[in-house]
Amino acid sequence: MTLRMTEDGGSLVDHAIQAVRDHIRDHDLKVGDSLPGEGSFAKDMGVSRAVMREAFGALAALGLIDVANGRRARVGAIDGSVMGASLDHAVATEQISVAEVWDVRRTVEVRIAMLAAERRTEKQAARIMALAQAMAEADGDKDRLTANDIALHEAIADAAANKLFAQIVRSFAPLMKTAVSQAWRTRTAAEQRQAMIDRHLDLARTIQLGDPAAAGAAMEAHFDASVGQQLYARDARRMRD
Amino acid sequence: MTLRMTEDGGSLVDHAIQAVRDHIRDHDLKVGDSLPGEGSFAKDMGVSRAVMREAFGALAALGLIDVANGRRARVGAIDGSVMGASLDHAVATEQISVAEVWDVRRTVEVRIAMLAAERRTEKQAARIMALAQAMAEADGDKDRLTANDIALHEAIADAAANKLFAQIVRSFAPLMKTAVSQAWRTRTAAEQRQAMIDRHLDLARTIQLGDPAAAGAAMEAHFDASVGQQLYARDARRMRD
Repeated sequence: MTLRMTEDGGSLVDHAIQAVRDHIRDHDLKVGDSLPGEGSFAKDMGVSRAVMREAFGALAALGLIDVANGRRARVGAIDGSVMGASLDHAVATEQISVAEVWDVRRTVEVRIAMLAAERRTEKQAARIMALAQAMAEADGDKDRLTANDIALHEAIADAAANKLFAQIVRSFAPLMKTAVSQAWRTRTAAEQRQAMIDRHLDLARTIQLGDPAAAGAAMEAHFDASVGQQLYARDARRMRD
Repeated sequence: MTLRMTEDGGSLVDHAIQAVRDHIRDHDLKVGDSLPGEGSFAKDMGVSRAVMREAFGALAALGLIDVANGRRARVGAIDGSVMGASLDHAVATEQISVAEVWDVRRTVEVRIAMLAAERRTEKQAARIMALAQAMAEADGDKDRLTANDIALHEAIADAAANKLFAQIVRSFAPLMKTAVSQAWRTRTAAEQRQAMIDRHLDLARTIQLGDPAAAGAAMEAHFDASVGQQLYARDARRMRD
């Protein structure tokens, strides 16, 4: 990909990528706005169509442009999947440990709970409470429990009204689907499951009450009692030893 | 890119991307390990070399593989640039506001300061202190001030010993280079600059002392007094009005 170098050492493809990014910025384009075609950029830049095609491919992979269904390229919307793929790769190849992800997730979710308590609408508060109650009612059914658990955390992230926090939470989803469902499997003792459900109900109540400090504390309590925290403690011990 | 669909609705390229990701996971590959060539994957999957080439291009764009200098593909190392590109695009196209980034950065950096106070080596503590002192001594020279400011935050992130936090901080770098340098430009009054330098010195001291709560509080004080906080307050007011 980087065999064809320009004088300043960047590849032609890198330059082509930058040209499209500059075009988006200079023309103040927004999500969904159309971009000139590959041929038009190739002509303007004096590069081959093959180079431009590679650049468009890289931009599409990064979610910066959207070329779904072979339509004309449009400015892409971010959705957490790019950061999610990066994170998933980093954990699979042991560049980042699950314990490290857990600390980041805890930090982010505690702030999200505080913001949600401050900003949630009545409708959002009702949905968060309904999801916590659905967890309580799903007690025997672990798939339903997991699905409601994930949906509850996403509803809280939406109520926090910060799109970057919401994107970060969504980027954890591929890892969390495995981790959360494993966590629920290990909580075999009924009292442990009940304690986790109670913590989610506490969290929903503090957000409904609009009490940021209490919501942050409830989220901390939820994380500290969870199986992820045990993983974290185990890794931390291993690092010290 | 997604014109050639398979029966389950994904594109051939998406399937090819997944095959490479599965190969990395199934063979337990680590950063720098070699991958089979495009031709080998194309043959195994029964797809064209062009499809495989597109898949490799997308994987390289995401940093999942490294094909620098046209060498054989290797497993890629994450470095924050993928999340950085995504973030930069999202802010440029107004999908995410600077105020939203600021809140995430503040949240992440407060936790990082606490972890750094807990985990820093003596050498790291000395480097953090040296960078804070270099800021104090660079007072008149804004470029030196900015460079030392950014280096200080990266040194604290390294001392926190969590590679995901470090990656997130690095992903803010493209945005921060502009924001930090603008912030220092607006701090024209000498006493304001001195106050900011004192906060960075406080931060370095609390990390050297190994006091996580004080380090977290010092990082909060640093953010609350900064120009970014003023931006944040302005955007928050605009949202309420």
